[in-house]
Amino acid sequence: MFTYNPHEGVTYPEGFVAAGVKAGIKKSGNLDVAVLYSQTPAQVAAVFTQNAVAAAPVWVSKEVVQDGQAQAIVANAGCANACTGAQGLADAKETAKIAAAALQIPAENVLVASTGVIGVCLPMEKMKQGVQDAIAALAKDGAENASQAIITTDTHPKICAGEVTIDDMTVHFGAMAKGSGMIQPNMATMLAFITTDAAIEAKLLQEALSEVTETTFNMISVDGDMSTNDMAVVLANGMAKNPVIHEKGAAYETFKEALHTICETLAKDIAADGEGATKFLTVHVTGAKNFVEAKEVAMCVAKSPLVKTAFFGEDPNWGRVICAVGYAKAEVHPEQTVVSFGGLPVYARGTGCAVDAEKLHAVMQEKAIPIEIALHVGEAEATVWTCDFSYEYVKINGEYHT
Amino acid sequence: MFTYNPHEGVTYPEGFVAAGVKAGIKKSGNLDVAVLYSQTPAQVAAVFTQNAVAAAPVWVSKEVVQDGQAQAIVANAGCANACTGAQGLADAKETAKIAAAALQIPAENVLVASTGVIGVCLPMEKMKQGVQDAIAALAKDGAENASQAIITTDTHPKICAGEVTIDDMTVHFGAMAKGSGMIQPNMATMLAFITTDAAIEAKLLQEALSEVTETTFNMISVDGDMSTNDMAVVLANGMAKNPVIHEKGAAYETFKEALHTICETLAKDIAADGEGATKFLTVHVTGAKNFVEAKEVAMCVAKSPLVKTAFFGEDPNWGRVICAVGYAKAEVHPEQTVVSFGGLPVYARGTGCAVDAEKLHAVMQEKAIPIEIALHVGEAEATVWTCDFSYEYVKINGEYHT
Repeated sequence: MFTYNPHEGVTYPEGFVAAGVKAGIKKSGNLDVAVLYSQTPAQVAAVFTQNAVAAAPVWVSKEVVQDGQAQAIVANAGCANACTGAQGLADAKETAKIAAAALQIPAENVLVASTGVIGVCLPMEKMKQGVQDAIAALAKDGAENASQAIITTDTHPKICAGEVTIDDMTVHFGAMAKGSGMIQPNMATMLAFITTDAAIEAKLLQEALSEVTETTFNMISVDGDMSTNDMAVVLANGMAKNPVIHEKGAAYETFKEALHTICETLAKDIAADGEGATKFLTVHVTGAKNFVEAKEVAMCVAKSPLVKTAFFGEDPNWGRVICAVGYAKAEVHPEQTVVSFGGLPVYARGTGCAVDAEKLHAVMQEKAIPIEIALHVGEAEATVWTCDFSYEYVKINGEYHT
Repeated sequence: MFTYNPHEGVTYPEGFVAAGVKAGIKKSGNLDVAVLYSQTPAQVAAVFTQNAVAAAPVWVSKEVVQDGQAQAIVANAGCANACTGAQGLADAKETAKIAAAALQIPAENVLVASTGVIGVCLPMEKMKQGVQDAIAALAKDGAENASQAIITTDTHPKICAGEVTIDDMTVHFGAMAKGSGMIQPNMATMLAFITTDAAIEAKLLQEALSEVTETTFNMISVDGDMSTNDMAVVLANGMAKNPVIHEKGAAYETFKEALHTICETLAKDIAADGEGATKFLTVHVTGAKNFVEAKEVAMCVAKSPLVKTAFFGEDPNWGRVICAVGYAKAEVHPEQTVVSFGGLPVYARGTGCAVDAEKLHAVMQEKAIPIEIALHVGEAEATVWTCDFSYEYVKINGEYHT
């Protein structure tokens, strides 16, 4: 049984310390450089953006994880170091080197991650100072500052933690993430850093992360834009002293379930805190032919600007939902499909349902609204998490300047 | 050579009359029922929405066009007659019958079309009166009223006309359309009605319309939502007395080019008048592997909420453009790709270009902005037309109530 703890972050597991400092990269002057460090080399697994225009830190970190070992992560917000050519690549590598020197570990064990404006080079003087300051500040209680340092337009940092028993040993998990805009991951997403003191082989760690990502990070959409900088990383340093998980069995399943809970929590938190969001929408499709079609239907609904603006306006406009279902590339029979909002059926047998207007009004006023779509075609289901589309989204993205 | 005339509409060709009346279906009390009539039976071709949840009038009109002949179109705004079940189908058929009786033609020659709120049945008493009033008012100068009667949130009606010489005879074209929201057609789009006095066989007319649709109506996106009611129809009544076009040759090509100009004009007008639009964006992709990939890249850019809000904010945020290019399902090499705004290169060789800030600022302030994306992979190109994403879009769709 995984015991969830929403108040702790990446330093919850044994042997991890973290820090977040102000390096002057964010225009706001807020915390903007985070360092996460494991006292012993950790097994590492990661998933990255599939965007062809991947940022420099993505390329550098991809190399780091290849041998399955890492010990530190340097992340900054305020500058994405994307579309920065050879200089960007050199800067990302230099950042890893600066951290490696200060931590006295090989640069090959340092991942780098960036988020923020595209097309601007990292201010390396500021970065250098920031990385060194952060390393000097590394501490058990640094998880919150670190999580503050990686956010951009997020309204709050996303952290969570928890523990589970594996082979009679207590294994801890910690995590932090940032999301907000340019969110429709495919493979990895946004920035998410997960720590655990579990002992597990890198190969299995990667398998668990890849599998879990499919039903968590890859199931959220804020605006349908897949970022250049997405990255989700797990560091497992083995300090829980459980027998090393080296094959699929009960211990692996327990580990994977715990990882799933962590990733789903972060994913939902990112969707709920989407840019300008006033509503958190859970689109649950059942009875689809297969998972791919279930996800396609859910994504069409979750991405529809008409659906998203209707929920912003608290308008139970099921016509827009069934319209989006209708253009999904999936087997859909309008006559068989049932759409419900907050448990109240609003569309069935090809047309609107008689529905208690007061109850429906109350559902639309909720902050979190479940949208259920029963296709009655097959057995597969999928859940996508998203948010509404508000004036604030337009404001944030019309005024966020390059 | 096609001579274009932006001031005339569907009654420009010989033998067509039209009318638009107030039947009380729109809440605003504006014109809401249009009838278009050809004095002789016309050859007909049409393309319809591919949405699985197609509206009742779509099913009825699909049947009408099957034999290649039609003589009238009844269209209403304010109620989409979509998701209205058996009653909706009966109402759509009844509408055709009412018009047929008043016009003294077979109901099998009357197309019906609707646009507006989904899930509400047509108010048949009002429809009956409206159809009869419109038929009584049919006139050569009724094109403008008819075009007013089919719009919803459009800020202005879309009409155009023109003429071309085919086999020494002058052949006229006229058209009207409505667009605005729920616009990302696939196959047909929104409502578009095109008239011509050309003599052409229905089979070739359908071929020409289907081909032209691919590069006109199917190349626009306002919000990525494919409507339940999309329909584009051409009526060709043969009154120009040109030798009947019954095979592909010079006459067919001339005809198709004229039809293309009409459809492209309507398509661009619909994109420019998208809900809440303040900018008209032309996304032109060149050097793609094939047309499908060129369109995919252009659509990813045109549909990106981040790109659309940036242009609303007059922010030359090329990072969001290249990010959207990067997640398109197409062969893209970031290092080879060049992005230009209004002719000014902003991204090349993997990073931002040095660009005259004043000139770029001037480009961003234009109402119409071309976005050029040169992939340098192959020879194919595609153009997609779209608009920006403004507060007004959110307002229109958050407050438009069911």
